[in-house]
Amino acid sequence: MDLVWLVPTTGVLAVLFAFWLARNVLTSDAGTPEMQTIADMIFEGSMAFLRRQYGTIAVLAVVVAGVVGVLVASVSDGVREIVFANSTIDYGERVVSPTEEGILTALAFLAGAAASGLSGYIGMYISVRSNLRVASAAQRSLKAAITLAMRGGAVSGFLVVALSLLGVSGIFLVYSNVLGNPPSIAPFLVIGFGFGASFVALFAQIGGGIYTKAADVGADLVGKVEAGIPEDDPRNAAVVADLVGDNVGDCAGRGADLFESMSAENIGAMILGVAIYTVTGRIEWIMFPLVLRSFGILAAMVGVIVMPMFAREEDFDHPMRPLDMGYYVVSALSIVGLFVTTKAMLGDVWHWYFFCGLVGIACGTAFVYITQYYTSGAWRPVKEIARASATGPATNAIIGTAVGLETTAATAIAIGAALLASFALGSQAEIPEIPAFTAGIFGTAVATMGMLMSAAYILAMDTFGPITDNAGGITEMSGAPEGARRITDALDTAGNTTKALTKGYAVGSAGLAAFLLFSAYLDKVKDRLGIPLVEELPIDISSIDVFVGGLLGMMLVLLFSSLTIRAVGSAAEKIIEEVRRQFRENPGIMTGETRPDYGRAVDITARAALREMVAPGILAVGLPVAVGLGFRFLRDASVEVAGVEYPESAGWLAVAGTLIVGTIGGILIATFLNNSGGAWDNAKKYIESGDMRDAAGNVVQKGSPTHAAAVVGDTIGDPFKDTAGPSLHVLIKLLATVTLVLAPLFVNS
Amino acid sequence: MDLVWLVPTTGVLAVLFAFWLARNVLTSDAGTPEMQTIADMIFEGSMAFLRRQYGTIAVLAVVVAGVVGVLVASVSDGVREIVFANSTIDYGERVVSPTEEGILTALAFLAGAAASGLSGYIGMYISVRSNLRVASAAQRSLKAAITLAMRGGAVSGFLVVALSLLGVSGIFLVYSNVLGNPPSIAPFLVIGFGFGASFVALFAQIGGGIYTKAADVGADLVGKVEAGIPEDDPRNAAVVADLVGDNVGDCAGRGADLFESMSAENIGAMILGVAIYTVTGRIEWIMFPLVLRSFGILAAMVGVIVMPMFAREEDFDHPMRPLDMGYYVVSALSIVGLFVTTKAMLGDVWHWYFFCGLVGIACGTAFVYITQYYTSGAWRPVKEIARASATGPATNAIIGTAVGLETTAATAIAIGAALLASFALGSQAEIPEIPAFTAGIFGTAVATMGMLMSAAYILAMDTFGPITDNAGGITEMSGAPEGARRITDALDTAGNTTKALTKGYAVGSAGLAAFLLFSAYLDKVKDRLGIPLVEELPIDISSIDVFVGGLLGMMLVLLFSSLTIRAVGSAAEKIIEEVRRQFRENPGIMTGETRPDYGRAVDITARAALREMVAPGILAVGLPVAVGLGFRFLRDASVEVAGVEYPESAGWLAVAGTLIVGTIGGILIATFLNNSGGAWDNAKKYIESGDMRDAAGNVVQKGSPTHAAAVVGDTIGDPFKDTAGPSLHVLIKLLATVTLVLAPLFVNS
Repeated sequence: MDLVWLVPTTGVLAVLFAFWLARNVLTSDAGTPEMQTIADMIFEGSMAFLRRQYGTIAVLAVVVAGVVGVLVASVSDGVREIVFANSTIDYGERVVSPTEEGILTALAFLAGAAASGLSGYIGMYISVRSNLRVASAAQRSLKAAITLAMRGGAVSGFLVVALSLLGVSGIFLVYSNVLGNPPSIAPFLVIGFGFGASFVALFAQIGGGIYTKAADVGADLVGKVEAGIPEDDPRNAAVVADLVGDNVGDCAGRGADLFESMSAENIGAMILGVAIYTVTGRIEWIMFPLVLRSFGILAAMVGVIVMPMFAREEDFDHPMRPLDMGYYVVSALSIVGLFVTTKAMLGDVWHWYFFCGLVGIACGTAFVYITQYYTSGAWRPVKEIARASATGPATNAIIGTAVGLETTAATAIAIGAALLASFALGSQAEIPEIPAFTAGIFGTAVATMGMLMSAAYILAMDTFGPITDNAGGITEMSGAPEGARRITDALDTAGNTTKALTKGYAVGSAGLAAFLLFSAYLDKVKDRLGIPLVEELPIDISSIDVFVGGLLGMMLVLLFSSLTIRAVGSAAEKIIEEVRRQFRENPGIMTGETRPDYGRAVDITARAALREMVAPGILAVGLPVAVGLGFRFLRDASVEVAGVEYPESAGWLAVAGTLIVGTIGGILIATFLNNSGGAWDNAKKYIESGDMRDAAGNVVQKGSPTHAAAVVGDTIGDPFKDTAGPSLHVLIKLLATVTLVLAPLFVNS
Repeated sequence: MDLVWLVPTTGVLAVLFAFWLARNVLTSDAGTPEMQTIADMIFEGSMAFLRRQYGTIAVLAVVVAGVVGVLVASVSDGVREIVFANSTIDYGERVVSPTEEGILTALAFLAGAAASGLSGYIGMYISVRSNLRVASAAQRSLKAAITLAMRGGAVSGFLVVALSLLGVSGIFLVYSNVLGNPPSIAPFLVIGFGFGASFVALFAQIGGGIYTKAADVGADLVGKVEAGIPEDDPRNAAVVADLVGDNVGDCAGRGADLFESMSAENIGAMILGVAIYTVTGRIEWIMFPLVLRSFGILAAMVGVIVMPMFAREEDFDHPMRPLDMGYYVVSALSIVGLFVTTKAMLGDVWHWYFFCGLVGIACGTAFVYITQYYTSGAWRPVKEIARASATGPATNAIIGTAVGLETTAATAIAIGAALLASFALGSQAEIPEIPAFTAGIFGTAVATMGMLMSAAYILAMDTFGPITDNAGGITEMSGAPEGARRITDALDTAGNTTKALTKGYAVGSAGLAAFLLFSAYLDKVKDRLGIPLVEELPIDISSIDVFVGGLLGMMLVLLFSSLTIRAVGSAAEKIIEEVRRQFRENPGIMTGETRPDYGRAVDITARAALREMVAPGILAVGLPVAVGLGFRFLRDASVEVAGVEYPESAGWLAVAGTLIVGTIGGILIATFLNNSGGAWDNAKKYIESGDMRDAAGNVVQKGSPTHAAAVVGDTIGDPFKDTAGPSLHVLIKLLATVTLVLAPLFVNS
């Protein structure tokens, strides 16, 4: 049964695999000199932004690590060993002092921040080197191009997953075995890693998201709408900034997002495992999530390797087919891995948790299809938006909003059904002395793990998006032949789909994980209050603190969305002004005689994005802390002044309300933003494809008023789907990790 | 102390006052024959729609009343008398049998439905008779016009408030004294009245909201955007439908909305009062809400009477001034009434509840100002949207969305602060044997009552909106002189503000009331479970049923918004096609030689609106019932099949999650929809006012691309602010009343 050796082995293997893929990509043909010139500009712009962005984030991370360390050291009681004896719990010796807890948490935070930053940086480095090779391969073969794009994307995917696995397990090892602590306390110290990862992910996603959409919106408005030149036209000064944006937003941002998803989910599941471990004494309950993740990595590797076998030359109409087939292979192998792991590690009740894992895998697949249904041109929703464009931009926007809101139903029902099913299955597992409630929650954790087994493959598909998008841009700007464009167009369509479905997948996993992370938070609070972990601690939503906390949680989601959406608008205006200025001051640009100053546009975008990312970032980290401390001191003060003890009132209760309502709201608002944006985008593409006919039966032309209306919708959706929506994913998980780390601060003295 | 006689007296007085106002309005000058022709068309169209709509609703209401009666009769245990004895509770004899309970609930439902329908119908009748008189008065004097518009609006306002008060108190009287039941059980039977009122309000608001915005969007798109003719131009076939829409949406819809707000809040507060009554034996705790409401009506009467004194001729720039001054008078008198009522009825602890009431009055005032800040052209948010219009409709839409989302922060903070403050103050009231928790919740109820004391005046201001809007339309269409237009323009601006702030007020009161209605629901569940009302019943949001119920509650809000927004889009397309057809087939319309066929456009709009109101209506009523029954039977079945008792799982728990998260989400999403729409509207008006200058310092002209972009934003906002947002208010309260009535169905056997 001892499968734990798989964890470091797979982690190292995944890193080696990523390097092999990177070498494979980098040694392939690098195209014509024209292509290289453009690719170099994208590379320079991307890396310059990333360096500046990570420089800012690094400073913030070090400051926050210090603050967190000091706070934890000053308010915590330290960590005590949990000793189980006949249905009661005994908190033994304090094995970690408050100061040690502060230091270890701060160090874990820094490790998480560094690993998250590193995986984003390397992944992006390869991604902006892959685009050129894919563009070059597209001059020869669809199969070669799709293989190369997927491999370039997989570098990022496997590094993210491997660093998350190695980070969590490495710190766990150091904090238990190396420092000589009992394994039951280590997960409570490792959460700093998740917080660090979330923190970097938050700023990476917000900053990148603002950059990419400000550039995109700015370039579109001034190019397509005002000057009447096509997308990616080299006369547009913002076009390089736009291509840079695809990398820094979609690639680095989503990598950081899923890095923290996996880390937070791993740690949360380990904390739940501690509850069972303290009763059964079996360490497998804590190590299970790490082993299962290892099998997921192996499955994803096979998927990436076999995917090219399903690619057919000349099959321009079904570019998603090989990617989909690869996903089925990963899912099938994941089921095998799930079987082996549950059977080997979870004793007599393994089959119940095997079923829970299946629920998770099914849920992941459901999300892939739900997203495609709502955002792909083949089905009713997108066609409905396209049709509404015939009566102008306002009806396009109205129907797009309605479609986006509608998509939340399938999402909520899928998450709800998966939670209910996995909880019901898990609670059937009769583990002696473990209440059905605890066993059930562990079931939801296994479902989340099952869903996230395919994370490396999904991430590879996601990064496939910006790589192919860039390849298309390079092909267009370098004046490559028609055949190559046809290939990159097909890849670009597939890339849009994969980008959209990754978002659905990220939301779905956040929804499933929410429940287990919330339970982990309650475990931490119980630990602090001296309540056995296997006992229930009700969070009564009819109490005033929880209700108002919940109200503020919902507010956080909406205000955060407001700030990120507005940031795109503000930054885009700066870019529009710059492009207009260049057109005005240099008439040679429009005639094609002189090249616009791309670098200046890139620089202006970068500065605007970095400035705009600060306010939403501070709100996201600050509000839960303010609620927790505010309610704690409000209650303490009112007890002192009025001499009245409020029933069931405390900072940790208000924070629980913020966490849970913020999570529910965040999941569904993110779904709305992601899918409305995706649907608007594809409604425009559907019209451009020439498949739409008006009432008189004529094909709706590109450039017609109907198309112009669809372009407006697409632009409205840009900050929704690529800035606010993805940033909300990160916000949800940040909420979970920040409250988990700082829980002791919110418990009234 | 016996102030109860005030309740019927004030109720009757308010009805008489409404009739006096109606007579006053109807006997004033009815203008020129041209005006009368147009006003008659509006009148005919409005009444025809209302008759058809209420016909449909009446059938639905009778069916639902029957179903509710049968359900309650078959699942309830009947109602038992609650006898208090030394900290324990004793359920005495069953005084109402299940069959009786079913019949009484169904009858109360029908009474609520009838009263709600009646107040909407009469109010609207006067409103569509007032518009003409206001237009006529505008040819003479601003002061006369504003006085008449306010009086016309007040007819609706006082009827709504009086019928709610008389209905609730009358049924209470019949169900306790006349039938010989103890007063502690009557409030549980009266809730049917609230449910009936919500049910009618829901369909009235959805149907009216779809009608008004489908007509508005359709008329705008085809008129202003396509044909390039101004608003309210008689050549537009949809223009009468648009004017009809103002009445059926804003006037009848909002009347029904606030009718049920007050009824639900009254009944909820009475149920909370029962908890204290069962311990103290003092009936005042049950009757207090009705008496306080009576004082509110008296204060509002004085406000309406004195308002004209503050109006100044020729003060075109501050049309809101007299309305604001009247509101201050109402607030000041409300404080006096609050003082008298609390002191007379609430014994030793009266001062704590006096403070709670003050919190509510302050909260109402805060909402009036928050709404004005975010939706009036004088401040930053609207100017920001106007400025963004310079870069096109997409940036206008993006910034408008950001502003709308931002407004949720002030709303959430104001509601949260008012709840915390009134709960804290209320829980200081030391009533023997009553826990601080119960006393605190009663404090939030008093705050809600305090806020709603000014309801009649606020409603009068609200109906002022469509009356002045219509008066402007009649003036424009009948070719009245410039001076009259200047007056109606000033009134129209004030009317837009009053319409917006009523929505803020309705959301705020829904937020405050949410907590008390939720407590009332728990009281009903406790009653059914045999738990003393003064004991706490925790709703643990970390339990799977509550969490998934909450997820579905948030989903309900978003899906409901989707359906109502889409309905406007679909109906508007029908109207656009019709107007285009008329322009095409009858070229004389555009040259002004022939009149378009207004009646046909009115008819098409009415049919489309009635068809589209069914789906969201069924969703709103059906989802909470489906959640409650679904979870109940799911649990029952799983206990039977698997032999496992789930911990803390039941239909009523899942419904509690749906109720509370749906309420929080509904309040804030409604705020977003209302305020983004209002801000877009006023950004357009701000540009039209000629106050905006572009980067070069030139005044932005009406008809410029910037203005066109602002018109797109205004149109997007139409279904947000006048259909989905207001319908969400009703949804929130319907959720509360439907669960309150059907609570026994959701308790596992």
